[in-house]
Amino acid sequence: MSSNPTHITAPDGTPFIEVIREFDAPRDLVFRASTEPDLVARWLGPREMAMRVIEYDARPGGRYRYVHAAPDGAEYAFRGVFHTVSEPLIIQTFEFEGAPGSVSLESTALDEIGGRTRMRHSAVFPSVAARDQALAAGMERGINDSMDRLAELLAAGAVRPGR
Amino acid sequence: MSSNPTHITAPDGTPFIEVIREFDAPRDLVFRASTEPDLVARWLGPREMAMRVIEYDARPGGRYRYVHAAPDGAEYAFRGVFHTVSEPLIIQTFEFEGAPGSVSLESTALDEIGGRTRMRHSAVFPSVAARDQALAAGMERGINDSMDRLAELLAAGAVRPGR
Repeated sequence: MSSNPTHITAPDGTPFIEVIREFDAPRDLVFRASTEPDLVARWLGPREMAMRVIEYDARPGGRYRYVHAAPDGAEYAFRGVFHTVSEPLIIQTFEFEGAPGSVSLESTALDEIGGRTRMRHSAVFPSVAARDQALAAGMERGINDSMDRLAELLAAGAVRPGR
Repeated sequence: MSSNPTHITAPDGTPFIEVIREFDAPRDLVFRASTEPDLVARWLGPREMAMRVIEYDARPGGRYRYVHAAPDGAEYAFRGVFHTVSEPLIIQTFEFEGAPGSVSLESTALDEIGGRTRMRHSAVFPSVAARDQALAAGMERGINDSMDRLAELLAAGAVRPGR
């Protein structure tokens, strides 16, 4: 691939990660794909992982928990709560159960421009070290896979308006 | 007062604020005072403000919302959700409704040492600018008042064990 359509920035010495990606789909479909558990399970995470959703209650105060299963059988569980779920904005906490107590806060904002949608996802960690640890654990590849898979899901027409 | 028992650090150019304070009370009482709405309402916020709790459901996924009323009648509302509530740790989101969308993540950890309790409270904001804005709005005085009022509440025997 000549150029990566997902732009990830993680300035040295800061606890921030920012991800920007455009999708060739209207905003309501990207929002729907980001809040409905059956759809989230089809794109979130590294491509080789199977995602099992335990709960995914996308409303303020709702909780989520899911497990990523690797081909070798290893499992990785994640959990959090939603603070804001109001199109075009989602704000939620995020914790990898393998590193308990290190909780980050994630924000996903969607802008629609001429039928296309620009996603701006940002995460802030409780320390610079925690951010660096997440990057070292391969977070960037997981983000790239997720964004590509979401684009593919939208292109395949798997996300329908209304319901 | 010769020295402030509340230690606040907010390094330049970072989105962090850290608060350390010791209380002459066992950990379970400090935890109780930090999670029961009737008690929280008696110490959280600047001394001259009256606090009205709308909801305060201190458990994972529980929401809170409260209003601080100033003597001049001005009101300031705050809201968030709890991610972790498990003695000795509380992790929650925090949003001032006057600055919607700028959500911070707060962590309160309690260590008991010989019947005394050391509180380590940390907050991380979504940007350095948002942290600086909170400081400029008088956050430090609110923190100092809150910590002093909590120490007074504990010293007065207003927080009882068990129940």
